[in-house]
Amino acid sequence: MFKKILIANRGEIALRVIRTCKEMGIKTVAVYSTADAESLHVKFADEAVCIGPAPSSESYLKMSNIIAAAEITNADAIHPGYGFLSENAKFSKICEEHDIKFIGASAEMISKMGDKATAKETMKAAGVPCVPGSDGIIPDFETCKIIALETGYPVMLKATAGGGGKGMRAIWKEADLKDAWDSARQEAKAAFGNDGMYMEKLIEEPRHIEIQIVGDSTGRACHLSERDCSVQRRHQKLTEEVPSPFMTKKLRDAMGKAAVRAAEYIKYEGVGTIEFLVDKHRDFYFMEMNTRIQVEHPITEQVIDFDLVREQILVAAGQPITGKNYTPNLHAIECRINAEDPYNGFRPSPGRITTLHAPGGHGVRLDTHVYAGYSIPPNYDSMIAKLITTAQTREEAISKMKRALDEFVIEGIKTTIPFHRQLMEHPDYVAGNYTTKFMEDFVMEKPSEEE
Amino acid sequence: MFKKILIANRGEIALRVIRTCKEMGIKTVAVYSTADAESLHVKFADEAVCIGPAPSSESYLKMSNIIAAAEITNADAIHPGYGFLSENAKFSKICEEHDIKFIGASAEMISKMGDKATAKETMKAAGVPCVPGSDGIIPDFETCKIIALETGYPVMLKATAGGGGKGMRAIWKEADLKDAWDSARQEAKAAFGNDGMYMEKLIEEPRHIEIQIVGDSTGRACHLSERDCSVQRRHQKLTEEVPSPFMTKKLRDAMGKAAVRAAEYIKYEGVGTIEFLVDKHRDFYFMEMNTRIQVEHPITEQVIDFDLVREQILVAAGQPITGKNYTPNLHAIECRINAEDPYNGFRPSPGRITTLHAPGGHGVRLDTHVYAGYSIPPNYDSMIAKLITTAQTREEAISKMKRALDEFVIEGIKTTIPFHRQLMEHPDYVAGNYTTKFMEDFVMEKPSEEE
Repeated sequence: MFKKILIANRGEIALRVIRTCKEMGIKTVAVYSTADAESLHVKFADEAVCIGPAPSSESYLKMSNIIAAAEITNADAIHPGYGFLSENAKFSKICEEHDIKFIGASAEMISKMGDKATAKETMKAAGVPCVPGSDGIIPDFETCKIIALETGYPVMLKATAGGGGKGMRAIWKEADLKDAWDSARQEAKAAFGNDGMYMEKLIEEPRHIEIQIVGDSTGRACHLSERDCSVQRRHQKLTEEVPSPFMTKKLRDAMGKAAVRAAEYIKYEGVGTIEFLVDKHRDFYFMEMNTRIQVEHPITEQVIDFDLVREQILVAAGQPITGKNYTPNLHAIECRINAEDPYNGFRPSPGRITTLHAPGGHGVRLDTHVYAGYSIPPNYDSMIAKLITTAQTREEAISKMKRALDEFVIEGIKTTIPFHRQLMEHPDYVAGNYTTKFMEDFVMEKPSEEE
Repeated sequence: MFKKILIANRGEIALRVIRTCKEMGIKTVAVYSTADAESLHVKFADEAVCIGPAPSSESYLKMSNIIAAAEITNADAIHPGYGFLSENAKFSKICEEHDIKFIGASAEMISKMGDKATAKETMKAAGVPCVPGSDGIIPDFETCKIIALETGYPVMLKATAGGGGKGMRAIWKEADLKDAWDSARQEAKAAFGNDGMYMEKLIEEPRHIEIQIVGDSTGRACHLSERDCSVQRRHQKLTEEVPSPFMTKKLRDAMGKAAVRAAEYIKYEGVGTIEFLVDKHRDFYFMEMNTRIQVEHPITEQVIDFDLVREQILVAAGQPITGKNYTPNLHAIECRINAEDPYNGFRPSPGRITTLHAPGGHGVRLDTHVYAGYSIPPNYDSMIAKLITTAQTREEAISKMKRALDEFVIEGIKTTIPFHRQLMEHPDYVAGNYTTKFMEDFVMEKPSEEE
């Protein structure tokens, strides 16, 4: 087992990893920028090394400084957390060259799954469903008709040079295809000087549902059920839950099998996530793979009752997994608490936290690196806490979340707590009736007296 | 279902009950003494009524004030928590007379199980093992010999008027009985002027292991596995765990069956605990029954993954239980954090909390009514928080507890956190090798620099 792990990250995930290392009897090294000297991850690690000034490019992304910190402190492994260098093939390779175990994917694996086109080809070869459509530009309308039939209506025509919805058409039946083809090409030509078109299946009422997998060095993998991350704002996940309210036993079996097949096909080692889009017919399509621990991993831990970071470290140290697939018997929800003003377009709200009172009691978990007196630096992601509730049913988990949000006191900065309060009362959310489009129509209700 | 519940208690258990009521959509009324105006249970309840000055006899034990508070606020049920009026037959009866549901046992049940002799007789009738021995005073030595044989060596001779070990003898074989009989009687006569002797089986290496049960109005009961509460100081539990490190499948089945038999025999409704002494041979003996929720209930919640207070309220509202007995698949430990100075004979340390940072993350639960800025009144029990960790194994739960204790910062008062830190490192505790005598030889190690 590793003797000392350097955590090449900051904030709650750095603290998260340190906690598990402590519990496993592994020494820890925190690295930090000058802006993060007061963060809990620095206080709770056995050693801490300042690796540069606030801009990430000069500290958390500066490979040479991080490797130097690992060598100085004699760390035998590096945990990259999420973001920053966690899916950087070059960094994974450099760690390997320095005989430091990178607790994540190999350089080759990161390259393979990090490039969207390569990842899609690989998944197709593994027999995992991908969004159907044309292979690149469609040469003419006759071909377009054939591809549309093969793809199955509804389909999307998209300009290869496109953006902002220009040169994009949704087509629901063949009778409308010719008009759409002509008008989309004209529009693309006018907008981009390029009328090249490609086709993708239109995903109706799309949900973002991902499967947590774990694989080991024997080539065996298993899945730890799903997470529904459809509530997103500008592709940023806001809240996640397991089970997905849209899930059925049949769909979980199919998605789980596809994810395990994918992981075993690429001989994936470690924890990873296969993200899918699921349409209203419960057909699912590979989106991308994350070769690292994810922000929302705690909800999975809550329903499978074990520690995923521990599992990740064990696998990195060469230990085999149990190979057991999991079906959740509990329900868990995570709300990402950001230092943002939800009444003001979710504008970041860094600054000093004057008061902090954490919610507690049955079924409540809080992962945070902040505390009363802590100043949130303006340089990084605005997430300051993850509040997770767990209960027997979805209804109880929502009730528990409302209760915990009510107890959570953070003063001195604005947070997204009021947003989550409103979300937990939203009829569509309560009914489990939401897609990735949910936030497009969401309006924050101004509080009557506060503010 | 109840519309509004008054919680006739204070501190963490009042808050505990309020949390579940909130989650169930039930309105809450807090009652408080003038010393408790700033407690979280007052802040988090929907309504709060001051019921008198600090001494419990003038507030939390003052039945007329509590009933008046319930009537003023139109509460349709009262949850008594633990301690105070939770096992008061008269209060249960008064509630009933006022058409307020007492969320606890009936007056008759409390009387039956509250009197030790009656409880023992009832348990014997239900076929639950009780500590064998004489029925009252032993008339002469010949009878003593017969009873000792029936009871089985080792036995204890005890003076009926006794106390402080005077007139008490442990006898391991018949050859020693006569001497013990004579000398104990002489000693008792001299000390108390009364040489009446009774006999009980000597419980070798006793452990306090209790079984959580729940019964409903159909007369059905089930058990939710055990809690080992052997680590006690002057009969005050300090830490509890489930499973008991001493437990075997066979013993759990036998104790569980006995507890369910007892609950069904007395037609017990609600949550309750049957406390047993277990000797080194894994023979177990009924000690007493608690007809209320217990301080240490959260560890059971952690391993059965559901909310016991919710279950208690549902059963009080007439709902049936599932009737399923539970075997824990996880391990949970609770440390009671008291405002006491462990380096100074555990002397109470009330006062103002200047800083409070709660531990968090995977497998950590905190139940507390205190916060930074809160002043602990000197009038009540010194427990200020319950820290609970849950993991796959006992070893991991201990590691997690050590990590959580390290993160827990409380400044301004002394707490028992250093005691628990030392306990979690104690070789006998780590080995699970402890009895109710454990604390007799425990010495706090003075920290080298701190203090």
